[in-house]
Amino acid sequence: MIETSDMRTNRRIVLARRPDGDVTAEDFRLEEVPLQPLLEGQLRVRNLYLSLDPYMRGRMDDAKSYAKPVQIGEVMGGGTVAEVVESNHPDFAIGERVQGAFGWQLFAESDGSGVQKLPSSRIPVTAWLGVVGMPGVTAWYGLNRILEPAAGQTLCVSAASGAVGSVVGQLAKAAGCRVVGIAGGEPKCRLVREEYGFDACVDYKAGRLEEDLKAATPGGVDMLFENVGGSIMDAVLARMNQSGRVAVCGLIAGYNGKDIALQRVRSILVNRLKIQGFIVSDHLDLWPQALQELAARVADGSLKYRETIADGLEKAPEAFIGLLSGANVGKQLVKLG
Amino acid sequence: MIETSDMRTNRRIVLARRPDGDVTAEDFRLEEVPLQPLLEGQLRVRNLYLSLDPYMRGRMDDAKSYAKPVQIGEVMGGGTVAEVVESNHPDFAIGERVQGAFGWQLFAESDGSGVQKLPSSRIPVTAWLGVVGMPGVTAWYGLNRILEPAAGQTLCVSAASGAVGSVVGQLAKAAGCRVVGIAGGEPKCRLVREEYGFDACVDYKAGRLEEDLKAATPGGVDMLFENVGGSIMDAVLARMNQSGRVAVCGLIAGYNGKDIALQRVRSILVNRLKIQGFIVSDHLDLWPQALQELAARVADGSLKYRETIADGLEKAPEAFIGLLSGANVGKQLVKLG
Repeated sequence: MIETSDMRTNRRIVLARRPDGDVTAEDFRLEEVPLQPLLEGQLRVRNLYLSLDPYMRGRMDDAKSYAKPVQIGEVMGGGTVAEVVESNHPDFAIGERVQGAFGWQLFAESDGSGVQKLPSSRIPVTAWLGVVGMPGVTAWYGLNRILEPAAGQTLCVSAASGAVGSVVGQLAKAAGCRVVGIAGGEPKCRLVREEYGFDACVDYKAGRLEEDLKAATPGGVDMLFENVGGSIMDAVLARMNQSGRVAVCGLIAGYNGKDIALQRVRSILVNRLKIQGFIVSDHLDLWPQALQELAARVADGSLKYRETIADGLEKAPEAFIGLLSGANVGKQLVKLG
Repeated sequence: MIETSDMRTNRRIVLARRPDGDVTAEDFRLEEVPLQPLLEGQLRVRNLYLSLDPYMRGRMDDAKSYAKPVQIGEVMGGGTVAEVVESNHPDFAIGERVQGAFGWQLFAESDGSGVQKLPSSRIPVTAWLGVVGMPGVTAWYGLNRILEPAAGQTLCVSAASGAVGSVVGQLAKAAGCRVVGIAGGEPKCRLVREEYGFDACVDYKAGRLEEDLKAATPGGVDMLFENVGGSIMDAVLARMNQSGRVAVCGLIAGYNGKDIALQRVRSILVNRLKIQGFIVSDHLDLWPQALQELAARVADGSLKYRETIADGLEKAPEAFIGLLSGANVGKQLVKLG
């Protein structure tokens, strides 16, 4: 059980205003509010780690997206791992560790719906927010259900050192594919090659994206797992082979403003591409299967991951802004407990 | 059998030079060449009608596309219906009517491969190049194998009055869909509504594409059959519903120059779209099934079509240039015989 100096006050980060283009620290506000008595049938948790994810950017806008927007003054949503600190709920006991959508705050209450107990295992608690959590299942779903990897084919993944991209590439290598990553900067590219075992990694910040990608994909590209969009996606579209598949998981290049256009549209027709957008939360029925495979690979050491952990709730906005520009390495978390 | 004043001279149109942007008459050259004695195992045909199709624009460029380019000085390729006028081939007799890739010329020779005899039927000979030919099968394949229409859903098709679009819409109506066309000019839109029975047709030349499309699709769009690309495709992407499907059949807006960019890329992700490019010649196994259904619908009068027929080989370049800008109504043919 967590020791804390103040079990009567919650600290939370709310949306202060909608971003105008790039997200800034002023778009958030840190609040302190007294905890209310816990209602019958509810449990209260103390968050240990908060997951920061690119999808949160979309929810800060008041535009149609796949999830409803956060309202002004509302706590920023997000997944956490947490510990039960108070319980009026028959299924949850104090001290149990759980996972849920408990948001950017120290304490949260719930009626238990959507809350999952963490299994006891050798897997570190933070991994349930990353490689054995939503990002890992995202990688698993897009690869296995959309791209359908075949041994010997070439897969390309953007944001290759990230929480999703690194898993995509390692699973594709295990399926016998040639795997080429795209990442920003040589340190990330080295990580992608040496730690995650990709065949190659192209540094988009080096200014020779099209040439370097061509050199890294002499046989063209059969599968693209897209996390970025814009000019990075265009560069890969120019390398696609006939009957290529594209899983559109994210378009982070366009999250801070208007849509970023695609230029290489003709490749869809010339190469008979299949391009499929997806949201992993549409496929909850497949999570148990995916999580079982991911957990087994983490437990036996064959699936590697990195984390960047900011320390303290007040660091969450800065860490989130960094995530949107690629300042993190691997899964971005905030330590709250 | 055809009577002709000169059975010893072929007239043909060759590619004189590659277009620089828009196609012009100077990109073609009309030639007269003497017919050579027919080789053993070959047949000679006199073309009756030549089909003009947007895909021909791609073959005039020296760029990678789904078919190899026409070479400078080479006869422009194209499908025709024709009559056998000479035969050293055991399977073909003088006077038989056939269909083949005999190109922009009066006479052609063949060893018989890819040549199909026209079945005797109530269907007019020109229909084998349109509604019961490649354009009809294109419509059938994209609709049934990619869009998978469900009764009550809304389908949108661009170039709606054209040889492909008009068939897409009529087949989708028969499948119980709400069908909205996009076409250029009120006369074409009226044809689409009144002759082809679409529920609505938006005139993109009226300058209110987004507003008019919104009014015509109050429940959004579940399926898009895309023939045009660019701003027309963007306008429909903005109206797509969750789990929408897009069949990319053509991108004629970009054929005369560089790729025309897509702006509404985010819709792929937000609405989990599936976008699939296709080329009907990849699916020859399905042609018999498609042609059988199309022929039955033409024979019973439920599938309607229009043709624009230019008279004489020398009119082919002008007719083709008109096709690329939408000057034709329905299937563009050239009468040669």
